[in-house]
Amino acid sequence: MKLDLCPSPALYPYYKSDNDTVVVVDVFRASATMCTMLNNGASAIIPVSNSEIAKEYKSKGYLVGAERNTKRCEFADFGNSPFDYTSKKVNGKEIVFTTTNGTRAIDVASDCKELLIGTFPNIDAVAGKCLKSAERVVILCAGWNNRINIEDTLFGGAFAEILLEKAKVKFDSDAIRMSYELWFRVKDNLDDYLKVSDHYQRLINNNAVGDANYCITRNSLSIVPTYNKSDRKIY
Amino acid sequence: MKLDLCPSPALYPYYKSDNDTVVVVDVFRASATMCTMLNNGASAIIPVSNSEIAKEYKSKGYLVGAERNTKRCEFADFGNSPFDYTSKKVNGKEIVFTTTNGTRAIDVASDCKELLIGTFPNIDAVAGKCLKSAERVVILCAGWNNRINIEDTLFGGAFAEILLEKAKVKFDSDAIRMSYELWFRVKDNLDDYLKVSDHYQRLINNNAVGDANYCITRNSLSIVPTYNKSDRKIY
Repeated sequence: MKLDLCPSPALYPYYKSDNDTVVVVDVFRASATMCTMLNNGASAIIPVSNSEIAKEYKSKGYLVGAERNTKRCEFADFGNSPFDYTSKKVNGKEIVFTTTNGTRAIDVASDCKELLIGTFPNIDAVAGKCLKSAERVVILCAGWNNRINIEDTLFGGAFAEILLEKAKVKFDSDAIRMSYELWFRVKDNLDDYLKVSDHYQRLINNNAVGDANYCITRNSLSIVPTYNKSDRKIY
Repeated sequence: MKLDLCPSPALYPYYKSDNDTVVVVDVFRASATMCTMLNNGASAIIPVSNSEIAKEYKSKGYLVGAERNTKRCEFADFGNSPFDYTSKKVNGKEIVFTTTNGTRAIDVASDCKELLIGTFPNIDAVAGKCLKSAERVVILCAGWNNRINIEDTLFGGAFAEILLEKAKVKFDSDAIRMSYELWFRVKDNLDDYLKVSDHYQRLINNNAVGDANYCITRNSLSIVPTYNKSDRKIY
């Protein structure tokens, strides 16, 4: 199996190949939030990259999660905290969802062979699914406004470590090699290291440190959100 | 002083600010090659991003260095090996220069306040110049066809180490933080680590390993090639 990492949605055209399985990762917080919605019984997620479209869905009666720059959009039912999406609120419902970075990453890669949502809480489950069927896996980091970030890059290194324990994996570019090296530099002090990241600071400034801890806890969930090309929903 | 790193020319719009000093780095090999031309007496470098334009200059009698995908373009006098540009050939001459990645990086950043060419052979000289006058320094990695690469990213970490020893430096994004961490992970085995990089493999395949060693030897040169906005030449 081949493995690569695309560090920013803006670079995706330079990393994609035919027959890719793309794992979209937005550690803080969209990936964990989407996993949590489905785990709490939501029937599907409708990802939209534009908040105006989300607003239209809202006016039609849909439940809507919408975040920009770490804050819930005023018109929305939920923001981007996984704790917003309780079973009581989402069970059996379709949720329209738009975030600053995560849904943009889904958008740019929506033509790939298979698109999965991955993050630390479901890392083993995603790796297991990739090991079963993928030819080439690309970790697509959501980043921050097209800039690269620490937490998504480190997920790539952690994911590579898991795959390498279980299969013969060829690193397909310098990007995945660097994330793997970086992972080994910081994995024993992950919490401390992430505290210097831009996004952790943003979460502190928005009283969302509890979210951060949830988002970097490994294997609390076994769900693998999967994008369905025919109806553009995530199940 | 603030310090940032832009990992790919395609991401430059998301990293730039007003009043930036941009250090364009293309470790393998354009940065070292440009330093060498000027060190060997070339009167100026005319960087062009398009090989058709380089060809026009050639027809007007200019000396031209042109490389695509690690190979010298057939029409050109020189390729991208620093050893091509001997004093005998370049002393007193203007050299038109185009490469796969390095001249593209110069092109995207040509509007910045100050544009310098940096790499391992002139790293101390570039750091010295930045410490004298820069407000915010952005290391702009040339990468490979807009993909990120190991050698340019590591230069960013090495450069950060030098600045931090001599001044109060604020890291301005996760990108420079990661390159700094990565540098400490591999600096004691830099040669071995670079051997796994995509570009080192390309240089081996093109019999240019001697170039690679020259390009990662620190402080063999004290020249700092500087872009002049008014005539678009490098001196």
